[in-house]
Amino acid sequence: MKEAPGSILLYELCGADPERLFSAYCWRVRMPLLHKGLAFRSIPWRFAERDVLAALGCDSVPVLRDGERVLQDSWAIMTDLEDRYPEPSLFGDKGGRSLAQFVRHRADSVLHPAIGRMIASDIPAHLDADSRDHFIRTREARFGRTLSEVTADRAERVGMFRQSLQPLRRLLEEQPFLHGAAPAAADFIAFGEFQWARCTSAFPLLQPGDPVHGWRERMLRLFGGAPAAGRVEDRS
Amino acid sequence: MKEAPGSILLYELCGADPERLFSAYCWRVRMPLLHKGLAFRSIPWRFAERDVLAALGCDSVPVLRDGERVLQDSWAIMTDLEDRYPEPSLFGDKGGRSLAQFVRHRADSVLHPAIGRMIASDIPAHLDADSRDHFIRTREARFGRTLSEVTADRAERVGMFRQSLQPLRRLLEEQPFLHGAAPAAADFIAFGEFQWARCTSAFPLLQPGDPVHGWRERMLRLFGGAPAAGRVEDRS
Repeated sequence: MKEAPGSILLYELCGADPERLFSAYCWRVRMPLLHKGLAFRSIPWRFAERDVLAALGCDSVPVLRDGERVLQDSWAIMTDLEDRYPEPSLFGDKGGRSLAQFVRHRADSVLHPAIGRMIASDIPAHLDADSRDHFIRTREARFGRTLSEVTADRAERVGMFRQSLQPLRRLLEEQPFLHGAAPAAADFIAFGEFQWARCTSAFPLLQPGDPVHGWRERMLRLFGGAPAAGRVEDRS
Repeated sequence: MKEAPGSILLYELCGADPERLFSAYCWRVRMPLLHKGLAFRSIPWRFAERDVLAALGCDSVPVLRDGERVLQDSWAIMTDLEDRYPEPSLFGDKGGRSLAQFVRHRADSVLHPAIGRMIASDIPAHLDADSRDHFIRTREARFGRTLSEVTADRAERVGMFRQSLQPLRRLLEEQPFLHGAAPAAADFIAFGEFQWARCTSAFPLLQPGDPVHGWRERMLRLFGGAPAAGRVEDRS
């Protein structure tokens, strides 16, 4: 680990178990920190602890605190890290940054909603009581249905989901990572979505033998296996 | 125009009018040739002229002939052009190449089928008689329906199509081209899909005011307006 000029703190969403780090957006920051070899301290944060963020002038995680700097929003944090700690790069040149942005927009508008509809009912079991109430109330209001109703037809829907991964899959048939021979920002962003599912749900989103599954396995082995460590189950 | 070592010939699909160059895949080669400033001669080719390609050992366009080299398949041609005429680059570094590959897989598996289902019935009117028969016969066999049936509900379907462009749109809200400040391979590939529609159909796929529409307009103005020249209608 390189010593960062400031002392970097990362506020990350966790479950009842502080080692269950399940936010897709927090993984979008955790992976870049590991990639850049920056030492950081994780501050596990739960939905019910709004006052902790409010004290920092923030209202959602991830929040990164680096000395005097306090930043929220995973993309803002990624680009800030890249500006201040350029090597190793998260993006490569313009094209690599555009790839990351495109994958990010795909993740936000396609992957995240689709995965959410397949794992929503599995998440509450991993939360502390206060966070569970908050989660169920806000998500059921958003969906307009109970979480069990949301995921009821996931066994049928997962086929279409896997089909929608076709562009990703074809790229991963050509090269081991989305960015190319080695992983970069695009990989970290997409990985966060699958990590979210893997840390909260036993529902098999990906099938062994799928190049996307193989890529996820490679991602889990990065940085000495750090993404697979802790209480994160090793599930398909 | 730079003088290419060999004399480059590009076999491109055309309509009854030889200037109606409407193949998405041929545009994936034409744009890179313009980008690299390589002089080339266009050989308009029609579906009925299978023997012309067979004589070259090929069975589909685009075909690029450069001296002794004969290549088919747009991606093979793009990568070959990049290897032999590196500047200006089509890809930038690894990340830019991955972006192009990802956009290509998205175009092949998502954009192309979706656009085809909205313009298929408009294409025959632009073809010579022999090609028209070939086109209608093969496409109706593929769809299992008449072309009019295929496009019958396009007015309803176009909303979902425009929605599916959201990741592209959000990227184009951030920067003028998919690759970044200037266009490159990813732009040329995606542009081919819209050029295919624009050269054969008056059906408005894109709406003015949509950032994707604005990008397409910028693409049409590249290279002195060459992509908008000829008998290509200027349609929304």
